[in-house]
Amino acid sequence: MTPRTTRVVCLVRRPDGEPLPGDFAVEERPLPPLGKGQLLVRNLYMSVDPSMRGRLESTEKHYTHNFTPGSPLDGRALGVVEESRCASVPPGTYVRHQLGWRERAVLDDAAVDGAGRIDPRLAPLPTWLGLLGQTGFTAYVGLTRIAELRPGDTVLVSAAAGAVGTAAGQFARLLGADRVIGTAGGPDKCALLVKEFGYDAAADYRAEPVRDALARLAPDGIDVYFDNVGGEQLAAALHALRTGGRVALCGMMSQFGADRRSADINQLIQAVLKRLTLRGFIVRDHQDLRPEFEQRVAGWLAEGRITARETVVDGLENAAGALLSLLGGGNVGKMLVRLGESAHGS
Amino acid sequence: MTPRTTRVVCLVRRPDGEPLPGDFAVEERPLPPLGKGQLLVRNLYMSVDPSMRGRLESTEKHYTHNFTPGSPLDGRALGVVEESRCASVPPGTYVRHQLGWRERAVLDDAAVDGAGRIDPRLAPLPTWLGLLGQTGFTAYVGLTRIAELRPGDTVLVSAAAGAVGTAAGQFARLLGADRVIGTAGGPDKCALLVKEFGYDAAADYRAEPVRDALARLAPDGIDVYFDNVGGEQLAAALHALRTGGRVALCGMMSQFGADRRSADINQLIQAVLKRLTLRGFIVRDHQDLRPEFEQRVAGWLAEGRITARETVVDGLENAAGALLSLLGGGNVGKMLVRLGESAHGS
Repeated sequence: MTPRTTRVVCLVRRPDGEPLPGDFAVEERPLPPLGKGQLLVRNLYMSVDPSMRGRLESTEKHYTHNFTPGSPLDGRALGVVEESRCASVPPGTYVRHQLGWRERAVLDDAAVDGAGRIDPRLAPLPTWLGLLGQTGFTAYVGLTRIAELRPGDTVLVSAAAGAVGTAAGQFARLLGADRVIGTAGGPDKCALLVKEFGYDAAADYRAEPVRDALARLAPDGIDVYFDNVGGEQLAAALHALRTGGRVALCGMMSQFGADRRSADINQLIQAVLKRLTLRGFIVRDHQDLRPEFEQRVAGWLAEGRITARETVVDGLENAAGALLSLLGGGNVGKMLVRLGESAHGS
Repeated sequence: MTPRTTRVVCLVRRPDGEPLPGDFAVEERPLPPLGKGQLLVRNLYMSVDPSMRGRLESTEKHYTHNFTPGSPLDGRALGVVEESRCASVPPGTYVRHQLGWRERAVLDDAAVDGAGRIDPRLAPLPTWLGLLGQTGFTAYVGLTRIAELRPGDTVLVSAAAGAVGTAAGQFARLLGADRVIGTAGGPDKCALLVKEFGYDAAADYRAEPVRDALARLAPDGIDVYFDNVGGEQLAAALHALRTGGRVALCGMMSQFGADRRSADINQLIQAVLKRLTLRGFIVRDHQDLRPEFEQRVAGWLAEGRITARETVVDGLENAAGALLSLLGGGNVGKMLVRLGESAHGS
C-alpha cells in the first residue's frame, strides 16, 4: 500500500553562529499522490555535504537555493523505486536524485539526475554517492580541468581526509602526480592519509602552521593546490606554489570558522609574482566530463587501485547530527546517512 | 671626447618602512671603456615604475634582481647612442634599454631590449616608455590574454589614473568593453578619468568604500577586473564580479601600504561561488603579443583615439623624489624623469 506520509528532516530555524541540534527536527509530512511519469522512491543512503553549511544561511543563494526554516532540507540521495508511473523506470530500479533528508520522495522521472539510475552490481551503493558520485566527480574535475594536473606535478590537497580530499589524493596519484601531500586535523587522520589514501605525506594543521609543514614536506614547492578550505591554508599554499602553479578553489569551509578574519588577501601578491592561476569551480558546470570520469574511476575501483571509504550514520533521526559532525571534522571519507532496512542489513 | 664617468642614482640603504629621500643619493661612477659590439647611450627619459618598490626590499627576488645598497638603481630608459662599436647601431639611434637611473650607460647591443630601437617620428619619445612601452603592453596583455576581455564586458580598473590604468581604461574601451569603471584617490583624478581617459565612471576610494561605489556604478556587476592594487579593492571587486568573471592580477601596490592586513583572503569564496578565474601575470612572459600590441596601439595613437599622458620630472637629482611621489600617488599617467638637454628643450 502506498505510504501517504514520510519522515523528513526540517530546518527549524537558521543557526545563530554555529549550527546546533535544535536547529533541526524530524517531522512527518504528507507525500503527494503519484502523478503520471512520477516515481515513489525509498531512500537508502543520503549524502551529507559541507556545502549544506552555506545553505543554512539567509544570504544570497549561489550554488542552489538556500534552505527555508519550517521546510525540509534536501540533498543528494540514492534510493530504490517502490512505485512507478513511468514505464521506463520500473520498481526495483536504483536511482540517484536530489531529494534526500527524507525517507521517501516523489520524483519526476526527469528529476533523477544526469547519472540517473545506477547499477548496484558495478559498485556498492555508498560508492555511488562517494567516489563515483558528485564527490569523486568534484575531485576529478578540479584536478583535471580546473587545476590542469600534469604528470610529475607535486600536488597539495586540503581537508585531505574528507570526502573530496580522499578522492583527490588518490586520483592525483593515478593521474600522474609525482608527489601528493594532504592536510588534515590531528595525527589519526594524518596517519590514515599516508596509510590508506596513498598520500606521500600529511601535514597536521592543528600541530603546526601549514606554511611551516610545507617548507619541510615540499621544499621545492608545489605545482597544484586543490583547495577545500580557504583561509590560512590557502595563504600557505600561495607561498609554496611554484611559478605557473594552479589552484582549484573548491568550497572554502574555513570561511564559516572562527579564523575567518585571520588570513590576508594580499597573500595574493604571490599570484602575481609566480603567475598563478586560481579558478573557482562548481562541478555541475562540467557535466560533459562525467562519462570519462565514470569510466576511469570505475576502472580504478575494479582494479583495486583506489579505496572507497565512508563514514556511515544510521537513521534519519541521526542525520542532523551527522551534518554537525561533518562540519566539526568528525568524518573520514564520505559522510553518509543510511536509512530503512539497509541500516540493519548489509 | 668620450665621458669617463656618469652620474647615477644609488640606493644608500634599504628603507625602514616607507622609503625616504635619504635612502637614495646621486653619485658619480666610472663608465667602462666601450668594448666591441658595445654602445654608449645618453639617457633622455627614464621610466619610474611601481614595481621598483618591491626591489628596494631584501626579500627574495621575483620579477628581477633586487637593488643593492651602495649600487645604482636600474630600470627602463630611452636614450640616444653617442658612440658605437656596433656597426648595426650607429650614433644617433634612439634605443630603449634597462639601464636607467643614470645619465649615461654602456650597453651591449644585445641589451637593447626586444623593442630595441625606436623611431621618434612615429610617436613622441615619452610615449615609447608609456603607451607604446612596457606600461601599455602590460595593460594590453592583462586585458586581452589574462582577463580575456570580450566585447560587451563591464570592466573595472584600479589605480586607473596611473600609467597602466590610463592605458587599460582606454584600451578596454577600444577592445570592445561596454562599460569601463576606474578607481582612483581623490576627486581630481576621478574627474580626469572620465574627462580625459574615456572612463564611464570613477570611484574615489578615499571618499567611499569601493564596494559601495561599485554597487552604485555597476549594479549588475562587472565581468573583468584589472587589479593594480590588491587588498580591499580586490575584495570589493570579488563581490562585484559576475559569474564567470576574470581578474588580471598585476602588481598589488597596496601590499606595501598601511592597510596590508585589512582584507580577508576568504573573500575568495566569491571565486568559488561565481567560478572566477584570477591570474597573476608578468608581462615579459608574453613577448609574442608585442608586434600585435605595437601595431594596434600605434594605430590608435595615430588616429587620435587614445590620449598619452605623462607626469614628467626633470633631472637625475629629482629622480628619487619622482619615485617617492609615484608611490604616494602623485602622478597621473606615466611617471618619467627627463634628463640632459631634453630637459630644457622640447
